[in-house]
Amino acid sequence: MRRTTFLSLLICGIAWAQADDSRPAISNVRGAQYPRVHADLRVSLRLKAPDAKKVQLQPGGDDNGLGHGPMDMIRADDGTWSITTPPAVPGFHYYWFLVDGVAMSDPASETYFGWGKECSGIEVPDNGVDFYAAKDVPHGEVRIHWYSSKTTQAWRRAYIYTPAEYDRKTRARYPVLYLQHGAGEDERGWTNQGRANFILDNLIAGGKAKPMIVVMEQGYATPPGEAQTTTPQGRGTGQPSLFEQVVVGDLIPMIDATYRTRSDRDHRAMAGLSMGGGQTLQITLTHLNMFSWIGSFSAPLRGGQDLKTAYSGAFADPAAFNKQVHLLWFGAGTGEERMLKGALAMHDALEKAGIKNVFYQSPGTAHEWQTWRRDLNEFAPLLFK
Amino acid sequence: MRRTTFLSLLICGIAWAQADDSRPAISNVRGAQYPRVHADLRVSLRLKAPDAKKVQLQPGGDDNGLGHGPMDMIRADDGTWSITTPPAVPGFHYYWFLVDGVAMSDPASETYFGWGKECSGIEVPDNGVDFYAAKDVPHGEVRIHWYSSKTTQAWRRAYIYTPAEYDRKTRARYPVLYLQHGAGEDERGWTNQGRANFILDNLIAGGKAKPMIVVMEQGYATPPGEAQTTTPQGRGTGQPSLFEQVVVGDLIPMIDATYRTRSDRDHRAMAGLSMGGGQTLQITLTHLNMFSWIGSFSAPLRGGQDLKTAYSGAFADPAAFNKQVHLLWFGAGTGEERMLKGALAMHDALEKAGIKNVFYQSPGTAHEWQTWRRDLNEFAPLLFK
Repeated sequence: MRRTTFLSLLICGIAWAQADDSRPAISNVRGAQYPRVHADLRVSLRLKAPDAKKVQLQPGGDDNGLGHGPMDMIRADDGTWSITTPPAVPGFHYYWFLVDGVAMSDPASETYFGWGKECSGIEVPDNGVDFYAAKDVPHGEVRIHWYSSKTTQAWRRAYIYTPAEYDRKTRARYPVLYLQHGAGEDERGWTNQGRANFILDNLIAGGKAKPMIVVMEQGYATPPGEAQTTTPQGRGTGQPSLFEQVVVGDLIPMIDATYRTRSDRDHRAMAGLSMGGGQTLQITLTHLNMFSWIGSFSAPLRGGQDLKTAYSGAFADPAAFNKQVHLLWFGAGTGEERMLKGALAMHDALEKAGIKNVFYQSPGTAHEWQTWRRDLNEFAPLLFK
Repeated sequence: MRRTTFLSLLICGIAWAQADDSRPAISNVRGAQYPRVHADLRVSLRLKAPDAKKVQLQPGGDDNGLGHGPMDMIRADDGTWSITTPPAVPGFHYYWFLVDGVAMSDPASETYFGWGKECSGIEVPDNGVDFYAAKDVPHGEVRIHWYSSKTTQAWRRAYIYTPAEYDRKTRARYPVLYLQHGAGEDERGWTNQGRANFILDNLIAGGKAKPMIVVMEQGYATPPGEAQTTTPQGRGTGQPSLFEQVVVGDLIPMIDATYRTRSDRDHRAMAGLSMGGGQTLQITLTHLNMFSWIGSFSAPLRGGQDLKTAYSGAFADPAAFNKQVHLLWFGAGTGEERMLKGALAMHDALEKAGIKNVFYQSPGTAHEWQTWRRDLNEFAPLLFK
């Protein structure tokens, strides 16, 4: 391929870099000097667009500190548009540019599948926090695994974390956590945005979590012959979804046949964020013969459900439930009011009904990946113990 | 995350789909109805940009049939811009849109790292050709593997193909092919653009290639403390590059320590495309104690080199070279004049000097991934035999 284009981009990028306290975000493509994060967590972004009439920054999430709604960027004489945001909330945030009203990815950013498209993202450091950093500890692998689904009669791709010791201890068998992304995201999210592999590496290396396999699938399924979609499905509506059939009928049997798993219910967990949290509750609570560890991260829970009938009556007999389920865990960020209220209401209702469950709130974070990284970091150590 | 945006995108997409012979490209994001490929391989692309003054399509390669230079798209009353290209060359092609002169990715396309950025791509079917299709055969995995480099003192990410049988035959050891991408691309290219995993799956399942491990690394390296770049390096200039030090000093020892490899030179191959072809020749020919199978795919070769002194004198003793090297292989597409001429000149000069080598030309394809898929499909069956 021709090299002129990206070389000149690179040279522009280097020329842009100023002698200040800012550094290129680690979410950038290799060599890109912008976006840059300042010591006080302000973020500076740039785009060269000499012929545009208006260029704006659109953060792709709620209350992440980057600002709200489209924010106008300022044009310099050379046609470069720039903006520096207020100090951002630490963590990963989606964003895009609006160039004369057209949403476009930042060519200087890596892409992260979210909002049903390949989105730009900015990683804002959380000073003093390193539980999701790539540290000098043994690293597990994330395996891109293709398999054929009977349910959809199509190839599916799963991302599968195997702990660092997996290929060394060739006789050991491992428990499995099924870990789902949110609406508009896919099987890559927990690795690329969530850094789940590094979280698990660090927990396992520190003796805080048991070595486990983590299966990250795509939370979508369409009937044979139909086109793939990212239409949300099975978010706890009480209706079994086609995705549920894939998990129960295709995915779990494939995983147990392919990897050295412990395949009984005592060694199988499921968790998910947002849509994936709803899917988790729906799938696990209606298949308690298969799962005994359950995590709901920022799921869209409605209060006022009848606990006698919800989820096919899973909660109807609290004593039986408590005996059967080792962990039922709800998390939400303090910055996401609806999800927080829903999780708290569910937690309280279950407590009142005598059903053991854990509630965790992530301080200062909204419906964002930083909440879910913390959820995983709190949830995983409790599993399989 | 909010679901309104991508749902409305989806609904727009469905409304666009017309009752003709075209189908959504498999390179699209899930559910996107455009770009569409017609039966005669014309490609239709769309972008909604009501406020733009001009929207153009820019193919990101040479002679792939999509057309040359920026091509104007036509505005409909609803602000949707569209274009249908002439029949395209089969295979994978990079492209982007120019919206009032600003290069932007197509939000309906998956992204493919090329041109130093996350690029849009279009997969045009090659009718009757299925060597790179996901077929109903055992599939290997592509493992995302992080490791620490002594040379750069930074974490590096490699993509590693293990054959389908790897986890079943736990005592078997495998030969290794190191397989490099081109300039502006990275370790993901051979999987996402090249479909190397499916090519190997099909060859191995058909008994045409030996089961092997394929290591796909990033062809860049910067000194400790320096920012990562995509600056091309070590493309056969005769100078050892820092990337070469990474391969020889960090990557190969890590692979041999981590995977069940056969670690002698008879079971180690290297190949690469374009920049990666140059890197391959440089690294293998100056380390013949480590490699005995060599593939150069569309490398930028200059004719008129002195074979006595080129590559530290690797060719100086033809008889010794022929005894030592099991395969020296050059490929190029008939549609890429410079690379074809260079490869042919090298082939002829080596033949004249009595050095055994293979020359392959890919009919009708240019400096494009279809050439390199075919290269791999021709090259891999010759290895380790």
